Amino acid sequence: MNLNKLLKPQTVAIVGASEKAGFGGDTTRNYLKFSKNQELVFFVNPGRDEIFGRRCYHSLLDIETDVDLVILCTPQKTILPLLREAAQKNCGGAVVFASGYSEVGAEGKVKQQELVEEANRLGIAVMGPNCAGFANFIDGVFAFAFLVEERDYSGNIGMISQSGQIVLGGLDSPNMGFSHVISSGNSCNVKVEDYLDFLVEDEDTKVVAVYIEGITKPTQLIETFRKAAKKKKPIVILKTGRSGKSQELAASHTGSLSGADKVLRAIFKRYGIVEAGDLEELCSMAAAFSWLGELPKGKRCVFMNVSGGEAGVMADLAEEYGITLADYKPETKKYLQSLVPDYGSVNNPFDMTAGIGYNTPVMCKAIEAISADDQVDAICIAYTITPEVWDATITHMVEAVEISRQNKEIKPIFWLPFIEHTRHQGSADTLKNAGVPLLPSGKYGCEALKKILDFATYTYEDGEIAIPDGVHKGSRGLSEYESLCYLKEHGVTIPPQAVAATKEEAIEAAKILGYPLSVKIHSADIQHKSDVGGVKLNIKNEEELAIAFDTIMDNCRKNAPGAVLSGVLLKPMLKSGVEMIIGVNNDKDFGPTIMVGMGGVFVELFKDVQLAPAPLTEKQAIQMIESLKAYPLLDGYRGNAVCDKKALADLLAAISKMAAEGKDKIKELDINPVFVTEEGVSIADALLILYDEEKEC
Amino acid sequence: MNLNKLLKPQTVAIVGASEKAGFGGDTTRNYLKFSKNQELVFFVNPGRDEIFGRRCYHSLLDIETDVDLVILCTPQKTILPLLREAAQKNCGGAVVFASGYSEVGAEGKVKQQELVEEANRLGIAVMGPNCAGFANFIDGVFAFAFLVEERDYSGNIGMISQSGQIVLGGLDSPNMGFSHVISSGNSCNVKVEDYLDFLVEDEDTKVVAVYIEGITKPTQLIETFRKAAKKKKPIVILKTGRSGKSQELAASHTGSLSGADKVLRAIFKRYGIVEAGDLEELCSMAAAFSWLGELPKGKRCVFMNVSGGEAGVMADLAEEYGITLADYKPETKKYLQSLVPDYGSVNNPFDMTAGIGYNTPVMCKAIEAISADDQVDAICIAYTITPEVWDATITHMVEAVEISRQNKEIKPIFWLPFIEHTRHQGSADTLKNAGVPLLPSGKYGCEALKKILDFATYTYEDGEIAIPDGVHKGSRGLSEYESLCYLKEHGVTIPPQAVAATKEEAIEAAKILGYPLSVKIHSADIQHKSDVGGVKLNIKNEEELAIAFDTIMDNCRKNAPGAVLSGVLLKPMLKSGVEMIIGVNNDKDFGPTIMVGMGGVFVELFKDVQLAPAPLTEKQAIQMIESLKAYPLLDGYRGNAVCDKKALADLLAAISKMAAEGKDKIKELDINPVFVTEEGVSIADALLILYDEEKEC
Repeated sequence: MNLNKLLKPQTVAIVGASEKAGFGGDTTRNYLKFSKNQELVFFVNPGRDEIFGRRCYHSLLDIETDVDLVILCTPQKTILPLLREAAQKNCGGAVVFASGYSEVGAEGKVKQQELVEEANRLGIAVMGPNCAGFANFIDGVFAFAFLVEERDYSGNIGMISQSGQIVLGGLDSPNMGFSHVISSGNSCNVKVEDYLDFLVEDEDTKVVAVYIEGITKPTQLIETFRKAAKKKKPIVILKTGRSGKSQELAASHTGSLSGADKVLRAIFKRYGIVEAGDLEELCSMAAAFSWLGELPKGKRCVFMNVSGGEAGVMADLAEEYGITLADYKPETKKYLQSLVPDYGSVNNPFDMTAGIGYNTPVMCKAIEAISADDQVDAICIAYTITPEVWDATITHMVEAVEISRQNKEIKPIFWLPFIEHTRHQGSADTLKNAGVPLLPSGKYGCEALKKILDFATYTYEDGEIAIPDGVHKGSRGLSEYESLCYLKEHGVTIPPQAVAATKEEAIEAAKILGYPLSVKIHSADIQHKSDVGGVKLNIKNEEELAIAFDTIMDNCRKNAPGAVLSGVLLKPMLKSGVEMIIGVNNDKDFGPTIMVGMGGVFVELFKDVQLAPAPLTEKQAIQMIESLKAYPLLDGYRGNAVCDKKALADLLAAISKMAAEGKDKIKELDINPVFVTEEGVSIADALLILYDEEKEC
Repeated sequence: MNLNKLLKPQTVAIVGASEKAGFGGDTTRNYLKFSKNQELVFFVNPGRDEIFGRRCYHSLLDIETDVDLVILCTPQKTILPLLREAAQKNCGGAVVFASGYSEVGAEGKVKQQELVEEANRLGIAVMGPNCAGFANFIDGVFAFAFLVEERDYSGNIGMISQSGQIVLGGLDSPNMGFSHVISSGNSCNVKVEDYLDFLVEDEDTKVVAVYIEGITKPTQLIETFRKAAKKKKPIVILKTGRSGKSQELAASHTGSLSGADKVLRAIFKRYGIVEAGDLEELCSMAAAFSWLGELPKGKRCVFMNVSGGEAGVMADLAEEYGITLADYKPETKKYLQSLVPDYGSVNNPFDMTAGIGYNTPVMCKAIEAISADDQVDAICIAYTITPEVWDATITHMVEAVEISRQNKEIKPIFWLPFIEHTRHQGSADTLKNAGVPLLPSGKYGCEALKKILDFATYTYEDGEIAIPDGVHKGSRGLSEYESLCYLKEHGVTIPPQAVAATKEEAIEAAKILGYPLSVKIHSADIQHKSDVGGVKLNIKNEEELAIAFDTIMDNCRKNAPGAVLSGVLLKPMLKSGVEMIIGVNNDKDFGPTIMVGMGGVFVELFKDVQLAPAPLTEKQAIQMIESLKAYPLLDGYRGNAVCDKKALADLLAAISKMAAEGKDKIKELDINPVFVTEEGVSIADALLILYDEEKEC
């Protein structure tokens, strides 16, 4: 659906315009105060002839020209008739403030569905219902229902929020300047994903800030993410539901850790989406990207302080937030040493002392020297900007930053206060004009800086992710043998195995496989084989095998009376190594997500897993493995063997490819464990769940 | 040393007083602007007769009365002569701004030592040198060298900082009101610990905020902490050095995780000290304690929001920061349901909707009902307060809080904004007067709230911690056998063991111990017994024992040629269980610190350890064990046995008692592993390092 008439209208009608407080009056007042196209706005109110000294039409139909956008400040019952009138004026967009729709239960949902259908029929893109409207600061259209402060809001942040309150929060943040703000409300026939796509395409928008509660168009979302990733336009998203039990997928063995919300986070990571943990982060990271002149080329940062104490605080924070402290080249260090008094010493964080911090020209030299160091990617000045400038240091330092940034060669500079951040407006404006983000204070500032540096060094790797074609209803679990066969047929290497229906077949099979062997019950009906006495390990010869066969069959007949027993599964005993788990969970929205983690309690108690959408490139597979906290255990930790991580990454990539290709077949896969040794990997057990539609593995 | 003449002087002289910018002029100006005792301040400057229209003395000696405090704004070389003059005026305190002391290397350290000695000889308590001075807002003495904003600074926070810059940060925080601010600088003959003790004793100080880089008086610090803990006066401390490699104790096997900084954190925990991670936390937690009417009685909190979106954000943050969400009693829920519109629902976080949030009397009813619920301990209103109040909701909600708090029965209320916090001053003042802390935004606010609730529910358990009497120079490691004997002699239960110098002795000993056995080399010179072939496990009979004896002795003769071999150590094979580590490290300042963790990589990769000063009560021992992330492994996790945690806690307490009693004997103890089973604990190996002064174990 084309959103131009909605978001960039030439002609606008405010229906329910008024001079009184309330949706109609506040919207009218806001419009007159903040909009550019004052000539082409029409007020409509059947009871008024004039509003704020301007003509008021009694009906939309009285307006002489076409109307691109109608802003409906009227109650729910008027909406459908008004839309029909609007359509007669060639209207293409409507803002609906009215509530009483899907937010109020079943009856409201029906009303919203009627609204969607009518809007679609009329070809009108509807914002809302139950929204606060939007503002387009590029073309000067202010269709927003809540009163706001009088200030210059224009800038390059595009903001979308499902909550009107949160849009208000953005507008109230003095460091934020906007191209567009959009309160999407209940999202009728235009969804958050549609606005997002609009803003990613929009040339006037440099960064997009999104507050979202739920995804409804996953395929389109991915397409938009990919577009943004390719052009490296930052998208900052705050998504709630990290704690919601309702967000968790029904637990399967390892699947208990995967869940729709975690899947979405894996998607974010793949496309370089910057995730905010709360509103402060959403707003401040958007503002930082908005102000930032250009992105750093790498992650190595120098902090400049004017106090030993604050340098110490900064050192602790940098380590805690994973910000890489740059090492100076010797010549840089030597030069900086010449700028500080005798007692000063050059470190990173760098306590510049009064010798530099109180002296604009010297500070310019210091910045120039640090910026020229090819071991440095970015500079961060860490100093509090107070509400009033009592402390001349602030003036000197802001001035030095301003002068330095006039040289186009100077690397990106950030400013990080220790206490709050929206302070002395003059200093803030100077920094903004110099392309120097004024980050939030302390920990928030470090979190923002870390994420900006991560984004700056993110590179999009081309590759489609595998979104399923539809939702499958039923599914069935395969036996271990069948699961392993499926893997083998789909290009995954598995250890030798054989099934045997009788003792004699088992003994024959063992001749080929060789001893020692593991022997397990072969039955699609038994998932937890050990629990029913269905497993015997380390079988060394024919005699032991014969006993094992009988024991297993007896145990299972007794302990799993309903199960169809197809004999036993034989496998040579594997050389045990580091135990890993690999899992696949097929998300209904985003398709197969692959998980890797160290086996046992590492996954369960320490949540030490990595998730990513399938398929994976080999590089992505390696990154996942290296991101595990337990990674050192694969890498020769404390005299352990250096495991074959390449083989593990290859396996992960192969399984991800299989999962992607099987996006409409595979529901779930649980490989637990896979042993990783110095010489390779071997899958010890696997359980696959396939969708019913697939008749055969 | 008595600090009253320094911090609460009746008469003050500013030496180097001036009208010009700089230490002298700025201090003079500040003094005149902010001090109460204008009559009893004397200006001293040999070159001036009058300053700001007041008499200026040419010398301290010209002043007719005694002078309690001298503020020396003059350079280093004048300081000692001035102190001697001051002493003649019965002076008891001096502020020394001059630098050039211990901060500038060896020569400066000598100068500082001279200053300390002279000040002690003269009986003058010196603040600084290289400090920014202090302000006492109770008695109205403003002896501070940096220019600050004009506002009312008075309140009940006592702040001490080793960095003058950080004091300035505190003064610049508009929500902070002070009893005293102290910039301790280089700390000459008065240390941070002395100021801390003064403020903990001070009736006008409700909360103490401390920025500290290093501890010099550990015994006194502990004494002050204990005093504060007993009277439950909050101390908020920001201590740098969390990242410093220099802060880590030299690594021993598991000791690598203990370190002076971690020891200090364990001390903080024991005494309920509130630790701040950065300046924002230091200032905002101090401000919150300062404003808070009374401490909550428990941790269960209700969040009140006016937006579904923000309620969702709050739910995520509450979980992530470990804030307990209260469950309403059914009657509370029912009542609240009657206050919201039909579509609203009562949860926690509670989206009050406009029905409550825009209506002062209804919101008062909601607060009253929630507060009356005995399953609720505290209420937190989560809503952004903007710089100007455009949004009438803020007015209604602040008003409702103000009215509610007039009822003394109403439980503690906090206010948490989503974006920044130092905003509309009128609203902030109202909240302050109502005893409702205006927390910092989002994550910072949650961190602060969590720590305040933790402090509120902290109870001091009486008991001395064991600080060593002095520093010991040398130390020696004991053999496993000697280590275990030492434990046994000091009341710790150990499994049976025997040493045997010959094969025959071994066979005799085995008759008593029984098979199967473990056999290890017995030598104080061999620490890593396995590495030299000095260990044989699971020895089942005499024949195997004889071979094991010979093999071990041969291996060790070959692989550890210098070592004195005293035979072998024999122990029955233990029933293995969950492997834990218990360690003791004797910190030179704070004495023995006890560590517990799950064995192996849990300690090393996941840093899953708990530390506490010795001795431990049984309750403290249990808390340590339960605080481990891996705790579920002891508690029947996934079908594991439910281990005897009581036995583990008893062992931990016994070892802590031994360590406390041995505070001047035991340098280090490493019990690794101790097996915990359903039936108890058994120590499998122990290594003890004793200080040299102790001749015998």
